[in-house]
Amino acid sequence: MHRIRVRVVEDALDANNTIARANRADFDRHGVAVVNLMSAPGSGKTTLLERLLGGGIPGKRIGILEGDVQGSLDADRLARLHVPVTQLNTDPGFGGECHLDANMVRSALSEVPLDEIDLLVIENVGNLVCPAEFRVGEDVRAMVWSVTEGEDKPLKYPLMFRTCELVLINKIDLLPHLDADLDRFLENLDLVHPDVPHLLVSAKTGDGVAEWRDWLAALVEERAAVPA
Amino acid sequence: MHRIRVRVVEDALDANNTIARANRADFDRHGVAVVNLMSAPGSGKTTLLERLLGGGIPGKRIGILEGDVQGSLDADRLARLHVPVTQLNTDPGFGGECHLDANMVRSALSEVPLDEIDLLVIENVGNLVCPAEFRVGEDVRAMVWSVTEGEDKPLKYPLMFRTCELVLINKIDLLPHLDADLDRFLENLDLVHPDVPHLLVSAKTGDGVAEWRDWLAALVEERAAVPA
Repeated sequence: MHRIRVRVVEDALDANNTIARANRADFDRHGVAVVNLMSAPGSGKTTLLERLLGGGIPGKRIGILEGDVQGSLDADRLARLHVPVTQLNTDPGFGGECHLDANMVRSALSEVPLDEIDLLVIENVGNLVCPAEFRVGEDVRAMVWSVTEGEDKPLKYPLMFRTCELVLINKIDLLPHLDADLDRFLENLDLVHPDVPHLLVSAKTGDGVAEWRDWLAALVEERAAVPA
Repeated sequence: MHRIRVRVVEDALDANNTIARANRADFDRHGVAVVNLMSAPGSGKTTLLERLLGGGIPGKRIGILEGDVQGSLDADRLARLHVPVTQLNTDPGFGGECHLDANMVRSALSEVPLDEIDLLVIENVGNLVCPAEFRVGEDVRAMVWSVTEGEDKPLKYPLMFRTCELVLINKIDLLPHLDADLDRFLENLDLVHPDVPHLLVSAKTGDGVAEWRDWLAALVEERAAVPA
């Protein structure tokens, strides 16, 4: 049984990549830069996005595609900040899909105003395993690791840490109250993804959010410089 | 494509339940009580188990089946506490499976000394979605939610919170440093799983671990009272 299941996953990944390229072509046609934002549940993706959208990125229009198993709690929070937010739920299955794939994103694209935005942030389902396996047509992947989660996580979930272009180290305001060893985390990160950039941030205090904003602004500029 | 994928998952769940019953029969034959321990990554499952194994359960022998995508970091930590620990890795696939299923557990059972233990704790892969979909032959499911993860989690990952017999609320030592609203979490929990028992614990300070130990001891007694 196990061998058959693996084959099905590989076929699904082939189909996924085909659809991801179609999404990519749509994003290119509209000149939209796309970030796939991933993390474990409760790492602070949505709160970081609230911080980002609060100040915005000067001269750039942001849209959000919000992936959740069920409900629209996060989308409701972000829509209050007056940006276009599209909710995508993964729950037609028994317990819901644990990730977004390219086809799910494709099915939502007609609801995303691509001609009115410069940057689309896709907030993936909270999970450190499967979201990393499915490209959705993004330019880059950013992931959030919270300092409360343990320094061993890059070694335990290597694909996620290996396939991202930025690691946001969140909840640094809690460091004085934890035994967390940040140097050890960075050593572990370096073992699975040498030289990946990281930023120290706190969604609670706003520390580091300006640097994340600059990183996103540079991404949008870079995207705009590529001929469609 | 999406419809085909859902059908495959349902077939896999049928096969899973058949194998879970076979596992259950093996556990019954050896009079072993089995807990499926689940949570998001970094909620503190392993540290809680270290606390539990440090004191043990008087008169009861504990074994651990440790599920991880890759590596044996957690198994190595727990083996230091002189209990039988079996490591089960889910990484033959591309990024690794994001959960344990009954067949994976079955493939490891020959390495678990069932005749030398009274309680088997299966530490599942850190993930709030798919582990809840796959029975592995357990008596009960316990899940860990950390107070750092946000009060909305029962609403966003309802199947996990709905199908467990105990919720361990961990990292309560951090409550003075967070905006966490425990009453609101308990209200959300009650919406998806009314009257499920919960315990307030801190793997760091040891608070509440005695109550968890009592809960597990009662489970083992109950199991032993059932004729094989």
